[in-house]
Amino acid sequence: MKLWQKGYKLDKEVEKFTVGDDYLLDRELIEADVLGSLAHAEMLVSLKILTAGEFKKLRKVLLEILLLREEEKFTISARDEDVHTAVENYLTKKLGDLGKKIHTARSRNDQVIVDLRIYAKGKLLELEESLLDFCRTLRRFCRENKNVPMPGYTHCRKAMPSSVSLWAGAFLESLLDDLFLLKSAYEINNQCPLGSAAGYGVPLNIDRQLTSDLLGFKKVQNNVLYVNNSRGKIESIILSALSQVMLDLSKLAEDLILFTREEFNYFALPDEFCPGSSIMPQKKNPGPLEIVRGKSNVVVSYLFQVLNVINGLPSGYNQDFQLTKGPLLKGLEITNSSLQVSALIISGLKVNKESLKKSFPPEIFATDEAYKLVKEGMPFRDAYRRVAKDSKRSQTLTPGKIISSRKHLGASGNLGLEKVEKRIKEELKILKKEKDAFEKKKRRLTKTA
Amino acid sequence: MKLWQKGYKLDKEVEKFTVGDDYLLDRELIEADVLGSLAHAEMLVSLKILTAGEFKKLRKVLLEILLLREEEKFTISARDEDVHTAVENYLTKKLGDLGKKIHTARSRNDQVIVDLRIYAKGKLLELEESLLDFCRTLRRFCRENKNVPMPGYTHCRKAMPSSVSLWAGAFLESLLDDLFLLKSAYEINNQCPLGSAAGYGVPLNIDRQLTSDLLGFKKVQNNVLYVNNSRGKIESIILSALSQVMLDLSKLAEDLILFTREEFNYFALPDEFCPGSSIMPQKKNPGPLEIVRGKSNVVVSYLFQVLNVINGLPSGYNQDFQLTKGPLLKGLEITNSSLQVSALIISGLKVNKESLKKSFPPEIFATDEAYKLVKEGMPFRDAYRRVAKDSKRSQTLTPGKIISSRKHLGASGNLGLEKVEKRIKEELKILKKEKDAFEKKKRRLTKTA
Amino acid sequence: MKLWQKGYKLDKEVEKFTVGDDYLLDRELIEADVLGSLAHAEMLVSLKILTAGEFKKLRKVLLEILLLREEEKFTISARDEDVHTAVENYLTKKLGDLGKKIHTARSRNDQVIVDLRIYAKGKLLELEESLLDFCRTLRRFCRENKNVPMPGYTHCRKAMPSSVSLWAGAFLESLLDDLFLLKSAYEINNQCPLGSAAGYGVPLNIDRQLTSDLLGFKKVQNNVLYVNNSRGKIESIILSALSQVMLDLSKLAEDLILFTREEFNYFALPDEFCPGSSIMPQKKNPGPLEIVRGKSNVVVSYLFQVLNVINGLPSGYNQDFQLTKGPLLKGLEITNSSLQVSALIISGLKVNKESLKKSFPPEIFATDEAYKLVKEGMPFRDAYRRVAKDSKRSQTLTPGKIISSRKHLGASGNLGLEKVEKRIKEELKILKKEKDAFEKKKRRLTKTA
Amino acid sequence: MKLWQKGYKLDKEVEKFTVGDDYLLDRELIEADVLGSLAHAEMLVSLKILTAGEFKKLRKVLLEILLLREEEKFTISARDEDVHTAVENYLTKKLGDLGKKIHTARSRNDQVIVDLRIYAKGKLLELEESLLDFCRTLRRFCRENKNVPMPGYTHCRKAMPSSVSLWAGAFLESLLDDLFLLKSAYEINNQCPLGSAAGYGVPLNIDRQLTSDLLGFKKVQNNVLYVNNSRGKIESIILSALSQVMLDLSKLAEDLILFTREEFNYFALPDEFCPGSSIMPQKKNPGPLEIVRGKSNVVVSYLFQVLNVINGLPSGYNQDFQLTKGPLLKGLEITNSSLQVSALIISGLKVNKESLKKSFPPEIFATDEAYKLVKEGMPFRDAYRRVAKDSKRSQTLTPGKIISSRKHLGASGNLGLEKVEKRIKEELKILKKEKDAFEKKKRRLTKTA
Repeated sequence: MKLWQKGYKLDKEVEKFTVGDDYLLDRELIEADVLGSLAHAEMLVSLKILTAGEFKKLRKVLLEILLLREEEKFTISARDEDVHTAVENYLTKKLGDLGKKIHTARSRNDQVIVDLRIYAKGKLLELEESLLDFCRTLRRFCRENKNVPMPGYTHCRKAMPSSVSLWAGAFLESLLDDLFLLKSAYEINNQCPLGSAAGYGVPLNIDRQLTSDLLGFKKVQNNVLYVNNSRGKIESIILSALSQVMLDLSKLAEDLILFTREEFNYFALPDEFCPGSSIMPQKKNPGPLEIVRGKSNVVVSYLFQVLNVINGLPSGYNQDFQLTKGPLLKGLEITNSSLQVSALIISGLKVNKESLKKSFPPEIFATDEAYKLVKEGMPFRDAYRRVAKDSKRSQTLTPGKIISSRKHLGASGNLGLEKVEKRIKEELKILKKEKDAFEKKKRRLTKTA
Repeated sequence: MKLWQKGYKLDKEVEKFTVGDDYLLDRELIEADVLGSLAHAEMLVSLKILTAGEFKKLRKVLLEILLLREEEKFTISARDEDVHTAVENYLTKKLGDLGKKIHTARSRNDQVIVDLRIYAKGKLLELEESLLDFCRTLRRFCRENKNVPMPGYTHCRKAMPSSVSLWAGAFLESLLDDLFLLKSAYEINNQCPLGSAAGYGVPLNIDRQLTSDLLGFKKVQNNVLYVNNSRGKIESIILSALSQVMLDLSKLAEDLILFTREEFNYFALPDEFCPGSSIMPQKKNPGPLEIVRGKSNVVVSYLFQVLNVINGLPSGYNQDFQLTKGPLLKGLEITNSSLQVSALIISGLKVNKESLKKSFPPEIFATDEAYKLVKEGMPFRDAYRRVAKDSKRSQTLTPGKIISSRKHLGASGNLGLEKVEKRIKEELKILKKEKDAFEKKKRRLTKTA
Repeated sequence: MKLWQKGYKLDKEVEKFTVGDDYLLDRELIEADVLGSLAHAEMLVSLKILTAGEFKKLRKVLLEILLLREEEKFTISARDEDVHTAVENYLTKKLGDLGKKIHTARSRNDQVIVDLRIYAKGKLLELEESLLDFCRTLRRFCRENKNVPMPGYTHCRKAMPSSVSLWAGAFLESLLDDLFLLKSAYEINNQCPLGSAAGYGVPLNIDRQLTSDLLGFKKVQNNVLYVNNSRGKIESIILSALSQVMLDLSKLAEDLILFTREEFNYFALPDEFCPGSSIMPQKKNPGPLEIVRGKSNVVVSYLFQVLNVINGLPSGYNQDFQLTKGPLLKGLEITNSSLQVSALIISGLKVNKESLKKSFPPEIFATDEAYKLVKEGMPFRDAYRRVAKDSKRSQTLTPGKIISSRKHLGASGNLGLEKVEKRIKEELKILKKEKDAFEKKKRRLTKTA
Repeated sequence: MKLWQKGYKLDKEVEKFTVGDDYLLDRELIEADVLGSLAHAEMLVSLKILTAGEFKKLRKVLLEILLLREEEKFTISARDEDVHTAVENYLTKKLGDLGKKIHTARSRNDQVIVDLRIYAKGKLLELEESLLDFCRTLRRFCRENKNVPMPGYTHCRKAMPSSVSLWAGAFLESLLDDLFLLKSAYEINNQCPLGSAAGYGVPLNIDRQLTSDLLGFKKVQNNVLYVNNSRGKIESIILSALSQVMLDLSKLAEDLILFTREEFNYFALPDEFCPGSSIMPQKKNPGPLEIVRGKSNVVVSYLFQVLNVINGLPSGYNQDFQLTKGPLLKGLEITNSSLQVSALIISGLKVNKESLKKSFPPEIFATDEAYKLVKEGMPFRDAYRRVAKDSKRSQTLTPGKIISSRKHLGASGNLGLEKVEKRIKEELKILKKEKDAFEKKKRRLTKTA
C-alpha cells in the first residue's frame, strides 16, 4: 500500500520508472526515518493527537525496526517505493489503525527532507573526523620528514628549493580550509524542516520548535515553502564542500603518482597498495591513487547533477528532487572513504632521501643567486638578467641550507606546524562536543522507557 | 585469484576502495565477455596456441556461463573484482591449466574495452528501435490530431496560431536528427579493440582482423595505443548522443507538465500515469514526466563525468578509466527507459479540443493582421506598428483557417509528415539489417557444434 | 618588456595564444594591483630595501596610475601581457631603475593572487549589499501583499492554499542563507598571499604580516605552497556561493515567467521591463527574467570551468590557472547585476488580486477537509481516502481564512517577517563595518602624504 | 530604433542587462547576416514583394556593409542590440522605406539562426582544414622518428616497449575519428532555418527551398517549430565535437609537458615557445601547452553551458537561447587556434634519442620474457608468475628489436601510416570540394551585377 493510494493503480512500467532506485538508496535512511518519526510522534502527544499509551506502542515498534536494521533484516521493497512507506506499512501491520495515525500532520516531503538532514548531519560529523585524522597523519609525516629537501616545481619544471614538509604542509592547511567549508555546510544543513509538509504547512497547530529540539537541530527552518525550495540546494552546498576536499585529495594523488614514478622515485608506495597487471608481470600500479583522482571528478559531477536538476524548477516540490538524493549519499560515502584511503597511503609512504638529494640541478638555485646580488645592492630585475645569462653557479648553496634559511612566515624554515597542530586539536574538541550532543539526542529518542 | 596476483596481498581497505562497484556493474557484461573470449579463443586456434580440442572444451564451459547467466546464477563477487576474472576463474575451476591459456595474447584492458564495445553496440541498436517506435507513436498522434489548433508560444507568451501536429511534429524531426547522432556514435563504437593488450600490442603474431570479423565489427581499431587512449572518448561520444535524446524528452516532458496544468488543460494524462500525494487527497501528479525531465540532467552529468575523468590524463591506460563504465551503462539504460515511458505517455495522452479552442485571444492574430496590411502594400515595419497600436481586431480570422492556410514548407498546413513517415520506414529497414547481422555473428560464435 | 624576458623572443602566434584575453580582463585589476604594490613597497622600506625617499617617488607614480585609471586612460596592451607588467613598465618609464626595484621579493604569481583577493573582497562586499537591498525589496513586497491568497503548487499542480507573502518570503530566507555562504567565501578569501612568490617564498626576510595588515586582510595565508595551490580553489568557493544566489534568482525568474503568463495573470510586469518581438506586434516578453534564468547556467558553468581547470593539476603554479580569472570576474559581475535587475522587477511587479482570487478550485481545500475529519477523530489515512473519493466539498473554507489560520512557525499566518527584518538590519550593520574597515585601509595606502 | 519598438521605452538598466554582450559577439556575424539578407531579399523578388529594382538597391547597400566590415568600419552599438538591427538601421538610413521592407516574411529569430548556421559552416570548414594540417604535421613527425624506441606507460609506470611513432600515431587516428564527428556536426548544422520566423511560419507563401539553395544549405530544416527548438541543440552538437578535439590536444599537451620535464627529457621544446618566470631566471615554461590543456576545460564548460541553458525549456523561442551564442563562437575560435598552436609545437619538437635510449629498465621487457616462455609451451598465467618472481632478465632483448618485431595490425612494427596518409588525402579532397561549393554560393550572392 502506498501512502498516496486511493482507488486507481499506476501503470507498472511507469511505476518502476518513477520509483527508480530510491528504495535501494533508502536503506541508508532507515535510522534517520525512525528518529524523525519518534520526534514527530512525541510532538503529536503534546498536541493530544496521540495518547501517551499510543506513543509507547508506536515507539516500541519503531525501535524494533532499528533492531531489524542492525541485523540488516529490515527490507524496503520496490513495491514499498521508499523507506517512509516501508516504515508506515510495518507500523500498520503491527499496530493496525494506530500505525496510520503517525502520518497525521506531516507529508512524505517532510520525511524525506528530515531524513536527509539527519543523515547528512551524522555523515558530515564522521567525515570531519576522517579529515582531522588525515590532518594528524599529514602532521606526523611532516614531523618525520622535517627539513628533507625536495625540488619545488612551477609549470611542472624545477623552480626553487623546497622541502617535503612544505609540500605536505600545503595539503594540511588546504584541508583545514575545507573543514571550514564543511562546517559551513553543516550549519546550513542544521535546520529542522519538519512541519513544512508539502510546502504549505498543516491545518493543525503543530509545535515545530519541539520536533527541532528533540532531534537536536540548531533551529527550525522557518518559511514552510523555503523548506521545499531548499531540496537540492542544501545537497549542493554539501557537495560543493565535498568537492573541495576531493580536489585536495586529487592533487595529492596526482603528486604521488608523479613522485613515485621511476623517473622521480622521490617516494615509494608499499606493495600492498599497488595492484598489478594481468599481462605485465613486473607492474605495481598506483591504482588507489588513480581512483582517488578519478573520483574527484565523480563528486564534482554529482554537484553538477544536483545543481542542474534543481536549476530552472519553479517553487514548490517537484519530483525531479528525487534525483538529488543519490548524489548526496554517494558523495558523502566517496569523500569519506577517499580521506581514509589517502591517510592510509600517507601513513605507509616511504621517503627516498637519496633520490631527493640527487634531484637538485644547479639551475634551481638561480633565484637564490640573484638575491645574493640583490643583497649586494643590485636591482632585482638586473640581477635576474645577469643570472639568466651567466651559466656559472655558486658552489656554496645547498638545498639543506636554503630551505632552513627561508625564515619568513610560511616558508620552508618557518612552517608554523605547531600552530596547525594546535588548530587541529581545537577542531577535534569542537567536533567531539557536537558529536556528543547529537548522540545524546539520539539516545534520548531511542531509549527504551 | 586475481589475474595479476603474484606473491603479495593488497591491503583490504585499499582493495575494496579500488574495486568499487565494478563487480556489480559487470553483471551487465557477462554475455559480451563470453563473446569476446570465444572470438579470442578461436583466433588462438588459428595461431595454433590452442588445439581444436582445447577450443571445444573452452567453448563448452563458456556456453555454460551464458546459460547460468540467463538463470541469473553466474555470480561475480567483490573478490573476483570483475567479470573477466570471474569468467577466467570459472574456466580454470572447470578446466584447470587450459582455463588459464585463454588469457594468452590479451590483457584485461583488451577485455574491458571489447566488452563495452559489444555491449554498447547491442544497447544502441535497442535504443534506436525504441526511438523509432516512439517516432511512430508521435506520427500516429499527429495523424489523430490533424489540424487541431493550439496556441504557439514564444518567451512563454502566446505568439501565433499553431497546431497540435506542428508541436508534436517538431519532436519527431528532432528525434530523427538524434538518430543520426546515435548512428554516428554507433559507427565510432564499431571498431574492434582486441589485440591492443595494455596499449602496446603483444609479442605474438595475432590476427586482429579475424577477431574483429568474428565479432562483427566494422573494422579493427588500428593503432594499439589509440585503443587505450579511446577509453572514455567513445563512452562520451555515445553519452553526448544520448544527452541529445534526453534533452528532447525533457522538453517534451516540460511541455506536457505545462499543458496538462489546471491553468491550461490542453492535454490530460491518464490516471494510471499519475502518482498521488501522501497528504493531499486530490493530487494526481505528473511524476513520470518530472522524472524524465530530471533524468536528462543525470545523463548530461554522466557525460560530464566521463569527459572530466579522462581530461588531462596522459596517454596509455590509467585506472581512472574504470569510472567511465558506470555512466555509459546507466546512461544507456536511462535513455532507453525514458524513450519507452515517453512513448507510453504520448499513446495515452488525451487532447482536450475544447480548452484549446478557448485559448486563442484576439492578440494572437496580430501578425496575421499585419500581413493582411502587407498584402495590401504597406511595408511590414509600418504594418507592425499600426497593428501594435490598434486594438481593434478583424473578425474574419480563426485559428482553424490560419493553420490550414500556412502552406509553405514545414508550416502547420504543410508539415510533410508523409516524408517523415517514409524516413522512419527506411531507418527501420537499415536498423533491422544491422541487428540481423549482429545477431548472426553472435549465433555463429555461440552455436553448439 | 616582459617581466621574465631574457634574450630570446617568443613565437608571435604562440604568444598571442598564451596571453589570451588576460590583458583585457586585467583592466578590472588596476586598482588592486596598485594597492598591492603600495603595501609591498612599504614593506620593502621596513626591510631597508627601499629608502623612504624611493618609496615616496614610487607611491607618487602609483597614485598617478590610479588617477589615469579613473579617467580610463591607463592602458594595458596585449604586448604588456597583464596589469602587473603594465604597471611595472609605467614605473620604469617614469623612474628608471627605481621602477625595477619594486619587484624585489615578489613574483607575478604573488601579484595575480593578491590582486584577485583584493578585487574579490571589494566585489563581494558590493554583492552582499545588493543582496541585502534585494531582501529589503522583498520584505517590502511581502508587507504590501500581506495575506493575499495564492495557490500553492507541488508537481506544478494546485496543492494547498498559500499566500503571496509565503511565496516571496521563501526567497527572502533562501537569500539570507546565501548571504551566509557568501560570508564564508569572503572569509576564505580574506587571507593575504603576498610573500608566497612562486610558491616557495623568497630569500629575504620579508614581513608578510605587515603587508597583510596594510591591505586589511584578516590573516596571512601561511604555507607558501598552499598559496599557489589555492589558485582556482578560492575562485571556485566564491563561484559556488554565487551559484546559489543565481539559483534563487533563477527560481524566482521561472516563477515570475509562469505567474505573469496569460493563463495565470497572477502578477504583471511593467511594460518598461518587456522587450517586444520583431514580427509579432502584440508581444511584450519577459526578456530580463529569461536572461536571469539563463545566466544562472552561465555562472554554474563558470564554477565548473574553474573546478575542472584545477582538478588533476599537480602542486605548484601551473599556467592553466590563468583560465580561472575570467570566470571569477564575470561571475561576480553577472550575479551582482542579476540581483539588481531582480530587485527592480520585484519593485515594479503588480499583484493581480482578482486573478489570484479566481484561481482557487474546490479541490485545493482537500487537505484542509481531511484535517477537519482528523480533528473529529478519524485517523489521517482514512480521512485522506474519504476525501479523495468524496467530491462534495465544504462551503465554509475560504483561502483567506485558511491562510490566516495557519499559525504554526513559518506558515502563512505566522511568517516571522519581523525576525527576518531584524536579521537584515543586523547583517547590514556587520557589512557596513567590514566595508568601512576595508575603505579605511585603502585610504591609508593611497593617501598623498 | 529597435526592430520591435512600438511606443514605450525599456528601462535603461534592464535593457543593458538583457542585451548583454550580444552586440559585441555579433561583430563576427556581419558577413553571415548580409548573406542571409541577400538570399531572403532575392526570394522576396520571386514572391513579387520586392521588385527587381528594389532588390538591386538593397543589394548595393548590403554589399557596402560587407566592404565596411572588411575595413572594420561597420559598427554595432549597444543601442542597436544586435547585428540584425544594425543592418536594418543602415539599410533604412540609406534607402528609407525600402530598407524596412526586407524584414517582410522573417523575424529576428530567423536571422539569428541562419547567421549562426552560416557562420558555423564556414568556421567548421576552416577547423577541418586546421585539423587535417595538424594530421599532416603528425604524419611527418612519425616519418621523421620511425622506429625510435620509447617506453610505453600504463598507470604512469613503464609498461612495455613502445615507439615515438606509435605514440604520435595514436593522436593521428584519434583526430581522424574527431574529424568524423566534426563532419556529423557539420551535417546537422547544414539545414536552412529561414522561414521559421518565430517558430510558426509566416502568413505568406514563401519559398523556403529557394533561400536554402541560394545559401548552399544541404536541405531545408522542415518543421518550423523544430527550427526554434533546435537553438542550442545544434550549438551543443558542434561543441561536443569540438570537445573531443580539445580532449585529444589536452592529452597531447599533458604528454608533452611530462616528456619535456627535466626528469624525462625525451623531447625538447624550442625556446621560442617557452615563456619565462618573473622571479626565477632559469625558467623556460611550457606555457602554451598548459594553456591548451586548460582550454580543453573551457570548451567542455561551454558545452555544458549550452546544454544546461536549453535543458528544461519549453518548446518555442526563449530568450535564454541568447546565451548559447557566445559559447559557440568562442568554442570554434579556441579549438581552431589550439589546433594551430599544437601543430606549430609538434613541428618544432626535438626528439632526444639518447634520453629515450637510456629510459628502458630491464623490467620493461617482462611481458616479452613471459611470451618467450609461452612460445616454449608454458601457459601464459604460469609464465607470468615465473617472470614476476624471477629477477634475472634475458640479455638478448633490446627495445629496437622488440618494436620492429611487433608485426600485428596497429603495433609498433606495423603502424599502417600509409593507410592513414591516404585517408588524410581523401579527406582533404572532400573538404576542398565542400569549401569550393560554399564559396561559389557566396560569390553568386555577393557578385555585383
